[in-house]
Amino acid sequence: MSSTSSEHPAPAEHPAERQPQERKEPAYLFTEKHVADKSEIARRFIESRARLNANVDKANNFLVKRFYNIDHNAYLEGTLPAKTKELMGLVASACLRCDDCIYYHAIQAYRLGVTRPEQEESLNVALVVGGSIVIPHLRRAYDLLEELYG
Amino acid sequence: MSSTSSEHPAPAEHPAERQPQERKEPAYLFTEKHVADKSEIARRFIESRARLNANVDKANNFLVKRFYNIDHNAYLEGTLPAKTKELMGLVASACLRCDDCIYYHAIQAYRLGVTRPEQEESLNVALVVGGSIVIPHLRRAYDLLEELYG
Amino acid sequence: MSSTSSEHPAPAEHPAERQPQERKEPAYLFTEKHVADKSEIARRFIESRARLNANVDKANNFLVKRFYNIDHNAYLEGTLPAKTKELMGLVASACLRCDDCIYYHAIQAYRLGVTRPEQEESLNVALVVGGSIVIPHLRRAYDLLEELYG
Amino acid sequence: MSSTSSEHPAPAEHPAERQPQERKEPAYLFTEKHVADKSEIARRFIESRARLNANVDKANNFLVKRFYNIDHNAYLEGTLPAKTKELMGLVASACLRCDDCIYYHAIQAYRLGVTRPEQEESLNVALVVGGSIVIPHLRRAYDLLEELYG
Amino acid sequence: MSSTSSEHPAPAEHPAERQPQERKEPAYLFTEKHVADKSEIARRFIESRARLNANVDKANNFLVKRFYNIDHNAYLEGTLPAKTKELMGLVASACLRCDDCIYYHAIQAYRLGVTRPEQEESLNVALVVGGSIVIPHLRRAYDLLEELYG
Amino acid sequence: MSSTSSEHPAPAEHPAERQPQERKEPAYLFTEKHVADKSEIARRFIESRARLNANVDKANNFLVKRFYNIDHNAYLEGTLPAKTKELMGLVASACLRCDDCIYYHAIQAYRLGVTRPEQEESLNVALVVGGSIVIPHLRRAYDLLEELYG
Repeated sequence: MSSTSSEHPAPAEHPAERQPQERKEPAYLFTEKHVADKSEIARRFIESRARLNANVDKANNFLVKRFYNIDHNAYLEGTLPAKTKELMGLVASACLRCDDCIYYHAIQAYRLGVTRPEQEESLNVALVVGGSIVIPHLRRAYDLLEELYG
Repeated sequence: MSSTSSEHPAPAEHPAERQPQERKEPAYLFTEKHVADKSEIARRFIESRARLNANVDKANNFLVKRFYNIDHNAYLEGTLPAKTKELMGLVASACLRCDDCIYYHAIQAYRLGVTRPEQEESLNVALVVGGSIVIPHLRRAYDLLEELYG
Repeated sequence: MSSTSSEHPAPAEHPAERQPQERKEPAYLFTEKHVADKSEIARRFIESRARLNANVDKANNFLVKRFYNIDHNAYLEGTLPAKTKELMGLVASACLRCDDCIYYHAIQAYRLGVTRPEQEESLNVALVVGGSIVIPHLRRAYDLLEELYG
Repeated sequence: MSSTSSEHPAPAEHPAERQPQERKEPAYLFTEKHVADKSEIARRFIESRARLNANVDKANNFLVKRFYNIDHNAYLEGTLPAKTKELMGLVASACLRCDDCIYYHAIQAYRLGVTRPEQEESLNVALVVGGSIVIPHLRRAYDLLEELYG
Repeated sequence: MSSTSSEHPAPAEHPAERQPQERKEPAYLFTEKHVADKSEIARRFIESRARLNANVDKANNFLVKRFYNIDHNAYLEGTLPAKTKELMGLVASACLRCDDCIYYHAIQAYRLGVTRPEQEESLNVALVVGGSIVIPHLRRAYDLLEELYG
Repeated sequence: MSSTSSEHPAPAEHPAERQPQERKEPAYLFTEKHVADKSEIARRFIESRARLNANVDKANNFLVKRFYNIDHNAYLEGTLPAKTKELMGLVASACLRCDDCIYYHAIQAYRLGVTRPEQEESLNVALVVGGSIVIPHLRRAYDLLEELYG
């Protein structure tokens, strides 16, 4: 919410809008298994999440399934690249202070080829927006980043 | 937090990390005045914010000034483009349900040339992460987008 | 999170579970127009919401439409009565401190025939769970209740 | 916050309001011990909570005792059944993302004879209101439900 | 959550604990009317709050009355001075981003003789803990402080 | 947000404002080591925090370093005593429900000579403002207080 200084002369027209592209699955550079082999934190998270999701899947709750589906859709390749949207998921997760969600999106971003400086810069936005209450989550996120990229 | 399906064979190495670039002021395509002339919602927000910030500036509080400075830094051009970071600010603001912050980042993104579909896709991430409690804020955000891009 | 005292001898079996019923639209006792005629607060809320939703509808965003749809589904008659779920929506909205959401669910509950003491008791749960930060929203909720039931 | 469609002709009068009933302790079908024997997750939660509450009781803080008392009161049988209010407590806890609180209210609801579909439908309201950030808590709630009802 | 550096040799014993003092009403230096005459923001807040509280009082809800009572108790003179606890209420309100609550506690603190630098330093804690999302509320708080102390 | 009753005749002038004092490091009565020797909960927290901060330090992220610096500044001796500000940090942490942050500020307050009744009274403000959702964190805080002061 800072003030902005460098202003350029305003052109008459806004850049022509890109048409929303079709949503499609992103191309992962790395499998979840690759990530789990690289990082113990990631491995524990992925295994625990799989075990707990099995429970949810078994319950076969109509509304939960629809919510999972819409959630999946929100991060597909679209007008914005999947990479960017996973990093947005990371920022939202850090602001809302959910470790599981931070792990999930940091791993997804890694699998898509996002670099460590890009992950850090995203976490910086979350830190500034969300304040020092984010710091304990930031510390745990850096612990994961260290194992993934270190 | 959805499960992921499309996985590609894992390459041996992670893409070489880009060096963090120097931070610099982004190049705005539009001035605040241009935006205020285009949108009544933007105009009222910009004027009210300026009036209230004058009060804060006058108080000359050391820690507030440092916080404003760090806040300004977080959205400069860096490893990630300023456009992307303003949209991250938008996602965080919508998740945390702060109308003023949503207006601020949506206007900043507009000034940097972000398209409406890009703004909407960012808000979609916030809606899915933050849930229906985000909807009243989404409605007001669309009201602004309509004036800016409509 | 209080401790519980009155405990009865435990029966051997849990009550047989009801099958989840088909979801269906609830039967409203009152139209939105009826509510708007009765309460000025409700009228302003309903009109503003309609105006802003028109904007959102016009944008025709795929993911937003799907989210609205799943949101609509969550409050249909089901295993739990629609009345109960609207009151749950009210509790969640008050805990999360969203005035628009409080108005929406209090009006929906009214339209389904929920009584004022039922609305107040629901708000009590929200007050105790959410704390004094809920009080300003409670005040505004009571202002609406007074117009609807007074 | 969805729009509503099925509207019936508005009757002239709102249903006569029930008088608020006296608050009284609910009749539990199951003891905490029964629940702890059935579910390992419940057992660990109940034991840890008892151990920590002993500390709080010992401190004998006036205001904390009064708060615990008011908290206890909010879930008694009243105008709304205790079952409904425990499920409201569950919805609020899931929206506010507090695992201990979710466990507490899901166990209380179970002890009062609430069925699994009723618990799931309550969690659905929390999921839609609170968004994907609720999912990690939903997973852990289903893990408990599986042990209690499975 | 910063690291700490200046450490002094540790004494063997912790300072003898003061007994919790009896709670008693604080001595206000200024009436609400005095504040309302001084600040237009305060006047509007105080009047609106009085009007809305009349509604709540009229409803005579048992649990709400008890909650108001416990809330009143929390800010009385005790082990900590009332001044300090009003400022804690201010910090909590700013962190949780509730304008009405910020106005309430800033006015209470003013009435007890708290100085502007003390109010600002309290808001600084809230800003650092809560992040930039607190800034719009900080601006409005400074607007009130300007009218009260300016 | 309760109403206030005891009002004294309003003096004509507000007490002369103290000049903001220079910020300086507070004088700790106890080292972190002393605290870790006294409390197992504190020891585990301090060690884990040190290990994770080492990771963050190594990353040497410019914006994180600046944020840590500003965070450190917010709790120095100033217009308000460091003791008071650590207790404000405790209130904010409990309201925002961050166990790590609660441990941090409760330990800092202890190290500065804050008494147990002062810690409890601060937590009371957080409990009343934040509601029953704070209770699980309050329990864990009392567990630490018991080890530190018991």
